[in-house]
Amino acid sequence: MLTKNQAKFISSLRLKKNREEHGLFIAEGIKTVNDLLNSGIRVRQIYSSSNFQLSLFNHHIEVIRVKQSELKRLSSFSTPNEVLALCEIPRYELDLASLKDKLSLVLDTVQDPGNLGTLVRVADWFGIENIICSEETVELYNPKVIQATMGSVSRVRVHYTDLGAFFARAETELPLLEVYGTLVNAESIYGQGLSAAGLILMGNESKGISEHLLPFVKRKIAIPNYGKGAESLNVAVAAAVICAEFRRTATAC
Amino acid sequence: MLTKNQAKFISSLRLKKNREEHGLFIAEGIKTVNDLLNSGIRVRQIYSSSNFQLSLFNHHIEVIRVKQSELKRLSSFSTPNEVLALCEIPRYELDLASLKDKLSLVLDTVQDPGNLGTLVRVADWFGIENIICSEETVELYNPKVIQATMGSVSRVRVHYTDLGAFFARAETELPLLEVYGTLVNAESIYGQGLSAAGLILMGNESKGISEHLLPFVKRKIAIPNYGKGAESLNVAVAAAVICAEFRRTATAC
Repeated sequence: MLTKNQAKFISSLRLKKNREEHGLFIAEGIKTVNDLLNSGIRVRQIYSSSNFQLSLFNHHIEVIRVKQSELKRLSSFSTPNEVLALCEIPRYELDLASLKDKLSLVLDTVQDPGNLGTLVRVADWFGIENIICSEETVELYNPKVIQATMGSVSRVRVHYTDLGAFFARAETELPLLEVYGTLVNAESIYGQGLSAAGLILMGNESKGISEHLLPFVKRKIAIPNYGKGAESLNVAVAAAVICAEFRRTATAC
Repeated sequence: MLTKNQAKFISSLRLKKNREEHGLFIAEGIKTVNDLLNSGIRVRQIYSSSNFQLSLFNHHIEVIRVKQSELKRLSSFSTPNEVLALCEIPRYELDLASLKDKLSLVLDTVQDPGNLGTLVRVADWFGIENIICSEETVELYNPKVIQATMGSVSRVRVHYTDLGAFFARAETELPLLEVYGTLVNAESIYGQGLSAAGLILMGNESKGISEHLLPFVKRKIAIPNYGKGAESLNVAVAAAVICAEFRRTATAC
C-alpha cells in the first residue's frame, strides 16, 4: 500500500533539484533494479506491482507492494515498469591517476537524455569504467537517462567537472595519455594507430567540441563517411564505432 | 496566416491512419526540410515562422508564414522547429535484384521510433541505400522517426514487407547473397571475413531475431563484449558498429 506522502515524495524526484536535495534517484525496470542491487549503489526501497523477488543478500531492503495503477502514478514513463527503486546517488571522486592505463570517454555538453544513457551503455559494453562530463552535460539521474542506460548506470562511473581544468590537469599529471577528439573531416580512425589507453572527447549533438577544448585534442579522429549526404552520426553511435575500433586494434596488437 | 482547417489537418497527420489515408507526412527542422527539398520526395507546403528561403529549383512550393505560437500548435514536439513541411509519402517498389551487389539492413520488429530514425541515419552514413523492415516495425513516417533521421529519410529507401517471404525469395533469386544475423554469443565480427555485399538482419530491441527468421541466417555475427555486465547494445548502435566493420574490411581488401 502506497501512502499519499510516499507517492508525492517519489514524484518530486522527477525534478533535479529534489534529487540533489535528497541525494536520491529513481530507477525503473526489473533489469535496471536487479543490476543496481548487485552494484555498489545503495537501494533504499522498492515499489513493485508484481511478485519481485530479492536475493538473500538483499533481504534487508524494503519491498512495498503497490497496485499497477499506483505504480503508473509514480513512474516517469507513460508505460510504467513493474518495479521502481528508490536509490542513493553514489558519491565518488575522480581519481585522475587511475585513468593512466585506461580508455575513458569525455563528453562535452551532451544534452539529450537518451544519448547520455546510451553512451553509458556503450561504455559498459566496451569495458570503459569512467565517463567524464562537462558540467553542462545532462544530469545522469534524470529518469530518461537511467532508463536508457539499461542497468549500465550500476557499472560505469560518470563524473561531472570543468573539462578545461580536467584536461589541463591531465596534460600535467598524465602527459603520456593521448587525447583524441572526434571531429568531422579529421583523419580516419582506421590505419592511424590507436593507443590502448586514452581520453576520447565527444562533442555536443549539434555544436560538436567547444572551441576552448580543441587545444587539448592531440589526435583528431573521424569515422569515414561512405554515404552521399549524411552530415553526422548520432553521438552515442559515433562513440560506439570509435570504442569498437580502439578495442579491436588493441586486441589485434 | 494559418487557417483553422489547415491547423486541424496538419495536427491530424500525427496519427498513422490519417497519414496513410492522405499519403502525407510531416517533417520538421531546417536541415530535414532542406534535405527533403533536394530529394525525390515531393514537398507540398512549408510552414515557417522565420524567413525560410527556397532555392530557385523549389520556387513553386508554397511557403506559408506562421507565428511561432501557431507553429507550436502544429509541431509534434514540445520544442517546435522553425519550419515544418507537408510532404508526400513516396511510393517505391523493392527491387530485389538491385540488392545483389549491395549491403542492406533488414530490421525485424524494431519498435522504438528513435531507434528506427537513428538506423536510417546510420544507413545513410555508411552508404546503405535500402532498409527492409518487417511489417511490425514502427512506421517510418511517425514524426519521432522522421526527426531522428536528421534528414536521412530523404536518401535511404525504407521498405516494409513480410520478412519470411522476403528471405525465401532472396534465397532463390540471389543465392550468393550472404545473410548475416546479429546475435549475442555468435562469432565475433572480427577476423571471420565479411563480404562486401549482404543482408544484415537486426532483431527487436528486447526479443532479438524472431525464431522463424533464424533458418535464413547463414552467418551469425556478434560484437565482442569487453565489459563485465552489459547484456546488449542498443540496436542502432550495434548496427553502426557492424556496418563500420563491413565497410572497413571491404575497403581494406
